[in-house]
Amino acid sequence: MRLFSTPQLNPATETGWRRRWFDIIYRHDTPPSRNFDLLLIVAILASVIVIMLDSDPWLHIDHARVLYAIEWGFTALFTAEYVMRLLVVRRPLRYALSLWGIIDLLSILPTYLSLLFPGSQALLVVRILRVLRLFRILKLTQYVEEGGLLMTALWRSRRKIFLFVSALLTIAVIFGAMMFVIEGPEHGFSTIPTGMYWAIVTMATVGYGDLSPATPLGRFIASVLILIGYSIIAVPTGIYTAELASSLREATHGDGHHDHRGCPECGLEGHDPDAMHCRGCGHLLPKRMG
Amino acid sequence: MRLFSTPQLNPATETGWRRRWFDIIYRHDTPPSRNFDLLLIVAILASVIVIMLDSDPWLHIDHARVLYAIEWGFTALFTAEYVMRLLVVRRPLRYALSLWGIIDLLSILPTYLSLLFPGSQALLVVRILRVLRLFRILKLTQYVEEGGLLMTALWRSRRKIFLFVSALLTIAVIFGAMMFVIEGPEHGFSTIPTGMYWAIVTMATVGYGDLSPATPLGRFIASVLILIGYSIIAVPTGIYTAELASSLREATHGDGHHDHRGCPECGLEGHDPDAMHCRGCGHLLPKRMG
Amino acid sequence: MRLFSTPQLNPATETGWRRRWFDIIYRHDTPPSRNFDLLLIVAILASVIVIMLDSDPWLHIDHARVLYAIEWGFTALFTAEYVMRLLVVRRPLRYALSLWGIIDLLSILPTYLSLLFPGSQALLVVRILRVLRLFRILKLTQYVEEGGLLMTALWRSRRKIFLFVSALLTIAVIFGAMMFVIEGPEHGFSTIPTGMYWAIVTMATVGYGDLSPATPLGRFIASVLILIGYSIIAVPTGIYTAELASSLREATHGDGHHDHRGCPECGLEGHDPDAMHCRGCGHLLPKRMG
Amino acid sequence: MRLFSTPQLNPATETGWRRRWFDIIYRHDTPPSRNFDLLLIVAILASVIVIMLDSDPWLHIDHARVLYAIEWGFTALFTAEYVMRLLVVRRPLRYALSLWGIIDLLSILPTYLSLLFPGSQALLVVRILRVLRLFRILKLTQYVEEGGLLMTALWRSRRKIFLFVSALLTIAVIFGAMMFVIEGPEHGFSTIPTGMYWAIVTMATVGYGDLSPATPLGRFIASVLILIGYSIIAVPTGIYTAELASSLREATHGDGHHDHRGCPECGLEGHDPDAMHCRGCGHLLPKRMG
Repeated sequence: MRLFSTPQLNPATETGWRRRWFDIIYRHDTPPSRNFDLLLIVAILASVIVIMLDSDPWLHIDHARVLYAIEWGFTALFTAEYVMRLLVVRRPLRYALSLWGIIDLLSILPTYLSLLFPGSQALLVVRILRVLRLFRILKLTQYVEEGGLLMTALWRSRRKIFLFVSALLTIAVIFGAMMFVIEGPEHGFSTIPTGMYWAIVTMATVGYGDLSPATPLGRFIASVLILIGYSIIAVPTGIYTAELASSLREATHGDGHHDHRGCPECGLEGHDPDAMHCRGCGHLLPKRMG
Repeated sequence: MRLFSTPQLNPATETGWRRRWFDIIYRHDTPPSRNFDLLLIVAILASVIVIMLDSDPWLHIDHARVLYAIEWGFTALFTAEYVMRLLVVRRPLRYALSLWGIIDLLSILPTYLSLLFPGSQALLVVRILRVLRLFRILKLTQYVEEGGLLMTALWRSRRKIFLFVSALLTIAVIFGAMMFVIEGPEHGFSTIPTGMYWAIVTMATVGYGDLSPATPLGRFIASVLILIGYSIIAVPTGIYTAELASSLREATHGDGHHDHRGCPECGLEGHDPDAMHCRGCGHLLPKRMG
Repeated sequence: MRLFSTPQLNPATETGWRRRWFDIIYRHDTPPSRNFDLLLIVAILASVIVIMLDSDPWLHIDHARVLYAIEWGFTALFTAEYVMRLLVVRRPLRYALSLWGIIDLLSILPTYLSLLFPGSQALLVVRILRVLRLFRILKLTQYVEEGGLLMTALWRSRRKIFLFVSALLTIAVIFGAMMFVIEGPEHGFSTIPTGMYWAIVTMATVGYGDLSPATPLGRFIASVLILIGYSIIAVPTGIYTAELASSLREATHGDGHHDHRGCPECGLEGHDPDAMHCRGCGHLLPKRMG
Repeated sequence: MRLFSTPQLNPATETGWRRRWFDIIYRHDTPPSRNFDLLLIVAILASVIVIMLDSDPWLHIDHARVLYAIEWGFTALFTAEYVMRLLVVRRPLRYALSLWGIIDLLSILPTYLSLLFPGSQALLVVRILRVLRLFRILKLTQYVEEGGLLMTALWRSRRKIFLFVSALLTIAVIFGAMMFVIEGPEHGFSTIPTGMYWAIVTMATVGYGDLSPATPLGRFIASVLILIGYSIIAVPTGIYTAELASSLREATHGDGHHDHRGCPECGLEGHDPDAMHCRGCGHLLPKRMG
């Protein structure tokens, strides 16, 4: 997936401190780089927990100054790391504009913005996204690969998902407007977008209950909408399962259905397990083993 | 799908302005027709947004006259388009009675009706359905095809879906009446249809909470209903997935994996599409067609 | 399915009025019997609708006498039909104890019981179950067969479903007791069974909201329970889909994977499509066609 | 599954009372051991029901002393059984540290703890877990095996499930913080963890409604979150179904459809289990083993 590709990681200089720091920051297979990774993952998780604690009004009042200091400490740390990443990489602009570069920037910006707009520190939780990049370390590489497989299946289904979401929104507009007309503002359906919100909440079977039909006709229409939503809940599941199954089949195709014998004459591979002659040139194939 | 078939689009005259307008309205591959399509899609989305804004009581009071004027402007525009469609098509009645013709008419009628019945403008959101017809333009043709595939799978499952909905309604009647007897009007279950509404909301796992059992026996029965609903939630998903998988397999079977050539020497079938020689005896296979 | 098998329908007498009425009631392929079936289905649906209307307090007050008369009319009609069914069938006891016989009895009993216990008429909605028996008429035979297929798949999964429900209940007990201890009666978790009800409502993603955690620890445990429920929602769906897929595959197995050639020597069938020799006796098989 | 493996059940002595009691407690195929099992299952279920009744405040007040006595009776019984299990097994420590040993201990500990901390008896419901061990008796062995199959499929999917839960939590943090900023404490989103709780409740489509967005922007973001949750609800279902299907295929492959015999003459594999001759060349196949 392009989404998760790392920026060009070639160091600007072959020797010196930039080379050393590049190895520490961007590589994951030497003792110093592993320690750096571990430190970073702990720092990220700790800073997210501090932000969460700070959101509690009681803790905020009692420990405002301590939490404020810790927050600036983490921001200073991540700013230093961000600057260092820009310094040691060969093409800083490319890194800065990559997905990870933007996340790294977003994870430090809110603290500086909070000097201008108080309250925006809560957006610092975007830092949690940084944890994803550390998945590949600590023998977690496989997870990322599996994530890639899942993403591939999602990506393949993108057209169907787009179509599905369009259909969902269209139904939401129709039913939202109907409920606006039938139930009206006195039962909470104050605008058509509010009705759409209700329709989405209903079709996805979330059903908060902050808005719910109170008239018999409204309840009948809600039941119809629920049955529609219930019927199409099978759609994305079905699409995804079928795509995933076909992905898995393809992945196992190489060593499953076909075998590894190459034709001694023309080199063609991928023969059926029971093939005795090459399907390309007709030459006799070697006996199959295993 | 018949549902999405367009009406007979043969122009009444081979030349003149009707021919020109027919090309602009019904074709999608010339620059003028593309501009028309683009204009139309923008107009549709804009008019839907205006209707939504108009549903907001504050905006409605402040900008009533402006919104009213815009609404009539869009209605005039769509009326002109509707009349033009009728004029240039060879069989106007057939177009008028087709699915798209009815949607086009419904999308202008509410404004005129609102002169008689105030408030019915909200029904104008049916205009959003018109967006669907524009899917095929702007390189979105594939979406419609995929939609067709999904529809085919749904259509194939229609009997099972009918049976499933019947079973659902039957269970809803039984449990709705039980809750009416057990919980009674004092807990909101004022009529049997209200109980049915509650049962559907429960079985589909929506659970608004506007009605919920308050007695121990009612809660026990609700739990049983939930487990039943939870068990049969697997049914439509399973049906649909199986149908979709079999649709996909059929679609990929003919030109995908194996072909239908038999070996002229030994009769073996099921060769790979790129096979030139029989994998059983090595004899030359006939050329593949299609 | 045994569940849906009809009682022994052999008439007691070969001639006379009993024979005639047997044909009308139990057969579905002659004009008089079809009219009877149609009349019955209309009567059943009408009586269910009357019961629903009667449950509405306003309608009940305004039209109490009319609705009461109609109800007794339907009960008389169905009682006459029930008695007639007993009279003309060869083994009345077997019919009376069959699933359909019990449903037929239950659909008339509540009216008589309401003379003793007012309010029990609402249980008359069990009449809706009678509609199921009429599915097979009116060219709806296929639905019942498909229902049979679905039932077979459900029946095959019975052990897994039992295991699944047991696991669900066990988890419900554990988490219900935890919430009873943590949240306590002041937040609505007044008893352990109430907590179990909440846990089931939560795991099935219904979420009425009549009970919801209010303490941070309770919310954390609710989140854990939701993730558990969310994880195992895949279980019944997965089981059912796999069973259904294997049912479908078996149904298509006969003319799919194997072919119809019988061995000319030993008569064995079910050979692989590429088999040239009988797998039973080694005799040369005839060439495969199609 | 290691999880469900029983401890080493070799008796310490070959003869005497320990041998006799070992047979009664740990074996399930002799009349005395069956009676013991039956007694135990009844005692476990009865004690769980007593705990549930005791949680009801009205029952607790009226029958406090009786329930207290019964509870101590069951605890004495299970303590005796626990001590006996330790005495007769060859390696008591291994049993004590096994999953079942820990459950057995936890199921008696709360009563003793309640002498120190009143109210902790409710935790006694952990006793219900003991029922699981009795599944294997009473001809229920198959259920446990099927449970093992389900567990294997879950275990195989563990990495994807971990990845999925991580993604879910990350999304919950992001959206929880956004709602904390947008809706704020005045609409109930008092802290970021509260927002995370709301996000999990929403994504899993539980939707209690104790917290729900009240501002237009908050409702828009909730709709986006619902669509995301709705899209990824397909993920675990798809993963699990695919894994389960592949498990089933593997399980039926070895001893089901084809076997692993190769033809001694031509090497062809993939014969039917009942084949005696090679389907390719007609040569006699070797006898099948297993």
